[in-house]
Amino acid sequence: MKTLTVDLKERSYPVVVGGGALAGAGTLLARLGFQSPPVVVANGTVLRLHGPRLLGALEGAFGPSPVIRIPDGERYKNHQTLAKIYDGLFRARADRRSWVLAFGGGVTGDIAGFAAATFMRGIRFVMAPTTLLAQVDSSIGGKTGINVAQGKNLVGAFHQPSAVIADTAVLATLPGRQLRSGLYEVIKCGAIRSRPLLDYIDRKLPDILNRRPGPLEHIVVAAARIKAEVVALDETEGGPRMILNYGHTIGHAFEAAGGYRRFTHGEAVAWGMIASLAYGRELGVLGAAETAHLVRLIRGAGRLPAIGRLDPDEVWRSLLRDKKFEGGKLRMVFLRALGEGAVLDGVEASSLRRFLERFLAGNGNLE
Amino acid sequence: MKTLTVDLKERSYPVVVGGGALAGAGTLLARLGFQSPPVVVANGTVLRLHGPRLLGALEGAFGPSPVIRIPDGERYKNHQTLAKIYDGLFRARADRRSWVLAFGGGVTGDIAGFAAATFMRGIRFVMAPTTLLAQVDSSIGGKTGINVAQGKNLVGAFHQPSAVIADTAVLATLPGRQLRSGLYEVIKCGAIRSRPLLDYIDRKLPDILNRRPGPLEHIVVAAARIKAEVVALDETEGGPRMILNYGHTIGHAFEAAGGYRRFTHGEAVAWGMIASLAYGRELGVLGAAETAHLVRLIRGAGRLPAIGRLDPDEVWRSLLRDKKFEGGKLRMVFLRALGEGAVLDGVEASSLRRFLERFLAGNGNLE
Repeated sequence: MKTLTVDLKERSYPVVVGGGALAGAGTLLARLGFQSPPVVVANGTVLRLHGPRLLGALEGAFGPSPVIRIPDGERYKNHQTLAKIYDGLFRARADRRSWVLAFGGGVTGDIAGFAAATFMRGIRFVMAPTTLLAQVDSSIGGKTGINVAQGKNLVGAFHQPSAVIADTAVLATLPGRQLRSGLYEVIKCGAIRSRPLLDYIDRKLPDILNRRPGPLEHIVVAAARIKAEVVALDETEGGPRMILNYGHTIGHAFEAAGGYRRFTHGEAVAWGMIASLAYGRELGVLGAAETAHLVRLIRGAGRLPAIGRLDPDEVWRSLLRDKKFEGGKLRMVFLRALGEGAVLDGVEASSLRRFLERFLAGNGNLE
Repeated sequence: MKTLTVDLKERSYPVVVGGGALAGAGTLLARLGFQSPPVVVANGTVLRLHGPRLLGALEGAFGPSPVIRIPDGERYKNHQTLAKIYDGLFRARADRRSWVLAFGGGVTGDIAGFAAATFMRGIRFVMAPTTLLAQVDSSIGGKTGINVAQGKNLVGAFHQPSAVIADTAVLATLPGRQLRSGLYEVIKCGAIRSRPLLDYIDRKLPDILNRRPGPLEHIVVAAARIKAEVVALDETEGGPRMILNYGHTIGHAFEAAGGYRRFTHGEAVAWGMIASLAYGRELGVLGAAETAHLVRLIRGAGRLPAIGRLDPDEVWRSLLRDKKFEGGKLRMVFLRALGEGAVLDGVEASSLRRFLERFLAGNGNLE
């Protein structure tokens, strides 16, 4: 079991990572000062697979916890589910001293966190992420929110959790596609900030994909540490936190153009990184050998859904909805070296658009 | 024109008070660093009476501002109006660098502030309060939110404005009942923290009620300063900020038991202060002469809607919904002296309930 800290002064909090962490959640949270049971927010799948372990641990420390069951899936990350959580909080007679425990993947964390951010002007909450993606990314940093008709995560708040408990043992039941999707964000963390993490994944890829406990714990700790460090530099994403968006500018556009069905978020980011590498190669920001090395690593994690059938115009429209060009120029993250992300101003719209057309026409294969 | 500061470190902001402040809003906001026009949120009445002045000033500095018109009244401080504001922001092509200008009374400030707190995880906003109550109270301190079926302000956020611009000249058009309602909150500020403010109101009451510019500006500056000082001590109401709730524990219960129609918020607070004074007299926390002096001042501001017809059981149920008794005891604010509020723990439920029954039976007249 490893404990990292997200260092945000009076809003600092621990991130506990390890196999079996859920079983110790009651003791840990009691030690952090919680005295009453939380209101647990989770979907049916997570409750069935892992609910008994968490709820048992909480009961041992605090007595029985009320549970708000929410529907499963990104399409339910909306105002209706939010209203359902508020309603459950009122039924549980929650007040300003109550706290929420978000138990699940990114959707659960985002929406339960936003409910906590806004219920009675903000109550405390704890994240217990159950997907690799949530453990290394969305559970850390306090981004919460819901989707609206106009787009994803457009209504939300920065609201830091009081603790994150990432039990890597629960990853044993994660569908393979979800595991790989999380792994792409781990690779992203390595790409922008840690060559050793990239090398570790390169060496241990089969063990990771086979969910060997040691390697899983290693990559979650490493990626969560990178996320925590970057968040500590820039809590509300005004500056340096932008490097976490590596692969996301293009990835988001692919994800949206695929109707949020063709690619998981992680897969879209994987394609976004491959495209950024290819485009960065054209711009001359990273050498051919390093580019090829990282592309091989990303592709080695598993087969990505094909990209060739995306409509280039739709990809471009999605990118324009998501990002703002200032005077025809865009800020984007590139790699200066493997393990070193950097924000570049001045990417030209016309150049990026032409590149994307070529990239899609070639099915994402680099020449 | 006076400028106060709400001192909250990196979230500090100016409160500009004075007759004609709106006319200078463009220049002021440009000096604060705003570079593009805001999205203005206001209701039709405020736009008709004072819109041209504000919009003209903004246009001079930034070009034309888009306006989102919301319905007028507390019953519209709900999710539907919030969705309407989000929608207006999207139509105005707002992004993370956009800002909102909330132009109106407490309802407008609360809901536009909450929209700003949650649109794209929080954008900047400025308050231009147009009622006395909003100028001295709700525009300062960052409390934002909406009402839900379970009660008022139960969904919301702490989100500090970037500036407050309180033009006391607009109070000339405020209905008399609204003016008096605001005056009760000014008296409350004096009661908890400034004997000189109470004495000033005592001397100048006719001038204030006749809306003489000098006295109006004086009391807004004095009360806003008190609010700003207390907020700076305790941004999220964990401790000392509670003294701002003087008169509110009982006042809220009266307001709710009157169905939010019989009393304005300020009138309910006036009754809450009178009741707290009477109860404090029974508990021996303030002398008879000072108690009588403050009751006379409150009653001198105008006739309050009668209280005798409220159902004592309904008042008590409302109080229990609003406040939590711990082991049968409640925390409440009392005056140790005129100008000195203090939080007292250990008010006994049974004692308070018996007092309220007597108070209502006697129509709020102290024996």
